[in-house]
Amino acid sequence: MQSLREILSRIESGKTTAADALAFSAARIAEREPQVQAFASRPDALLPGTGPLAGIACGVKDIIETADLPTRMGSPIYDGWQPRADAPIVMALKAAGATVAGKTHTTAFAFLDPAPTRNPHDATASPGGSSAGSAAAVAAGMIPLALGTQTGGSVIRPAAYCGVAAIKPSYALLPTVGVKPFSWSLDTLGLMAASADDVGLALAAISGRPDMDASAASLSGLRIGIHHQAYAGAPEPASAAALQRFQELAAGAGAVLVPLEGAAALAEAFRAHGPLQDYEATQALAWEYAHHRDLLPPKLRAYLDAAGATTPEQYDEARRQSRRGRDAARGFFSEVDVVVSYAAPGEAPDTLGSTGDSRFNRLWTLLGVPCATIPLMRGPRGLPATIQIIAGFGNDNHVIAVAKGLEKLVEAGV
Amino acid sequence: MQSLREILSRIESGKTTAADALAFSAARIAEREPQVQAFASRPDALLPGTGPLAGIACGVKDIIETADLPTRMGSPIYDGWQPRADAPIVMALKAAGATVAGKTHTTAFAFLDPAPTRNPHDATASPGGSSAGSAAAVAAGMIPLALGTQTGGSVIRPAAYCGVAAIKPSYALLPTVGVKPFSWSLDTLGLMAASADDVGLALAAISGRPDMDASAASLSGLRIGIHHQAYAGAPEPASAAALQRFQELAAGAGAVLVPLEGAAALAEAFRAHGPLQDYEATQALAWEYAHHRDLLPPKLRAYLDAAGATTPEQYDEARRQSRRGRDAARGFFSEVDVVVSYAAPGEAPDTLGSTGDSRFNRLWTLLGVPCATIPLMRGPRGLPATIQIIAGFGNDNHVIAVAKGLEKLVEAGV
Repeated sequence: MQSLREILSRIESGKTTAADALAFSAARIAEREPQVQAFASRPDALLPGTGPLAGIACGVKDIIETADLPTRMGSPIYDGWQPRADAPIVMALKAAGATVAGKTHTTAFAFLDPAPTRNPHDATASPGGSSAGSAAAVAAGMIPLALGTQTGGSVIRPAAYCGVAAIKPSYALLPTVGVKPFSWSLDTLGLMAASADDVGLALAAISGRPDMDASAASLSGLRIGIHHQAYAGAPEPASAAALQRFQELAAGAGAVLVPLEGAAALAEAFRAHGPLQDYEATQALAWEYAHHRDLLPPKLRAYLDAAGATTPEQYDEARRQSRRGRDAARGFFSEVDVVVSYAAPGEAPDTLGSTGDSRFNRLWTLLGVPCATIPLMRGPRGLPATIQIIAGFGNDNHVIAVAKGLEKLVEAGV
Repeated sequence: MQSLREILSRIESGKTTAADALAFSAARIAEREPQVQAFASRPDALLPGTGPLAGIACGVKDIIETADLPTRMGSPIYDGWQPRADAPIVMALKAAGATVAGKTHTTAFAFLDPAPTRNPHDATASPGGSSAGSAAAVAAGMIPLALGTQTGGSVIRPAAYCGVAAIKPSYALLPTVGVKPFSWSLDTLGLMAASADDVGLALAAISGRPDMDASAASLSGLRIGIHHQAYAGAPEPASAAALQRFQELAAGAGAVLVPLEGAAALAEAFRAHGPLQDYEATQALAWEYAHHRDLLPPKLRAYLDAAGATTPEQYDEARRQSRRGRDAARGFFSEVDVVVSYAAPGEAPDTLGSTGDSRFNRLWTLLGVPCATIPLMRGPRGLPATIQIIAGFGNDNHVIAVAKGLEKLVEAGV
């Protein structure tokens, strides 16, 4: 993979230029794209910008509006669709000096029907979804940075399946204006890169919050809650092994591991994700469903067929449960420095017909709390298997710091 | 003005048809539009839909995306801009059987630079803003229903200035997907009609929440908090007189009037509206500002020039203040059945150069609580002057019920 920090450091020291760094990304794209199929559209040339991320080629998930590239939403309904404006997050990328390397493949409207993208580690395995192209493009070393979005698990899950680092920040830390909505209470922008160090650097530059480029936290003495999300079902052996491996690493580094079950209100909030998303998605995609139902892919079509039955009462109850969950989350996260859980049920599905399952991600998206993941180990099928680090709302720099601390342990191979 | 309930009743009883009701609206538009200038664009014909609002012509503020009419945002930057999809709120209107009578003039991007619209009561007075065309079209009797949006006071204020009924519902009761954002934490869709009765009927049909078509509440025994919003400055004599008139009517009907000052956290939340909006608007309009600053009107341009200096720290503090304000609001509203305050500083400004002032509206928008207004009386310049009725989050049907109760007293002329 391309390290964002290393590229910037080489540019700063004069060993390369922003233009050459972009040319390198362009060459990697030309080499890997035919196999990986990460991009829905790309500009004619990658021109360097001005700012802290000059020389960084960034993939932009294709539900994010761009003024100079079409925005297809992964659907023929938006074939040739050209928005007038760049979404604020794209403006922020460009203002930081990054260059849009292309629009990355998304599942249709960021739901579950697979994108054409392949997992760079195994062309017959899923890259996950819905931010499939973003995760795969970073994992394949084509680009050092990519934007994704998460409504269930669409940033952390593909990152885990493809073996890249990622953050799903606190709700609304990054502006979702100009991002095609699926469920506005849940939709959250996130970043993917080769390492947590890269993710933190990029998030600091894009959000204008220097503290996101946090120093690595020492795990010594850190209180880490180990949370199995029993309400979400059991993991596969690969993810169980990843959480076990994490505990060994953390304990070896002197962390205090605290089993955390979580209040009943968290399990209730987990279940509220369904009706909340159902009711909002029915409205968010009302035009597409009414006018182009036949052009919707089968999983999304069936989902919307059923979701339309959600009543305002069910929605209001789900919102109350979400609020109780957020109240309970404050106590949950205050018991420890961070919480660690499975990033995904297991390794990437060994099929291109499924993007996997977001059940270990949904609660955190609903709570709006920051989650980060880094590549940790390989599972029995040789594909990435990992954990996610979670903290209370607004503690984004803290999950980055802990992810960086863990990253050092992984690199040291202790 | 055209009464929505009366139109539907006449259709139901066979005295007219949906097509004839729409033809009546079209004729009224043809007659009044040259003077009032409420519409930015209109369809070739008004065709009846199917549903509870069949026969109802509805104006749609021109920052709301429509698939078959351009969406200009009140700005030459969006000249000829044709979105692909209808916004969910437009789909909800159509699903309820209403007919889009046209896109109504908005101030540019729903900020303060005036739209071309005139106040139907006085062609030299402001109709208010930003939902200028929506309020004026209803007030002029052109249409029985219109959609507006409020980020500061852009629904309640123009409704008050033009003498129509309106509701700014609880935050996110109506979906803002496909509505051009200005400040996503604040932007709220609202409805305008001839009466609170009409507003309630329309909100029930559009939101799928039958309880919004609430019965009129008796004011007898009702505990009504009278709140002067001292933190927002003093009202003009016209609004002071309107609040006085309201108190006389309510006391005469047996209501218990309770002076309510409000906690310091409310005044703090009122002030948080500024940095909250500044930080989000800077991002929401980043593309327009970077690429078309010269095409922005002077007030918006100067605003964005200054707003860009807002720091993440100021924004985060404003969000914390907003949250403390929402916590305090639960106590504030629990003391009484509803709160009543000024709807605007006074009568409509006697100039087309200003849309007036949102200082008595901002806090409620930030708190996300429902506000309703109805025509109450005339001020010294002969223009409408009125109050707004406010309740705790989610009690939309209650503010409608109380507004309908007040409406009966006003009609009875007691």
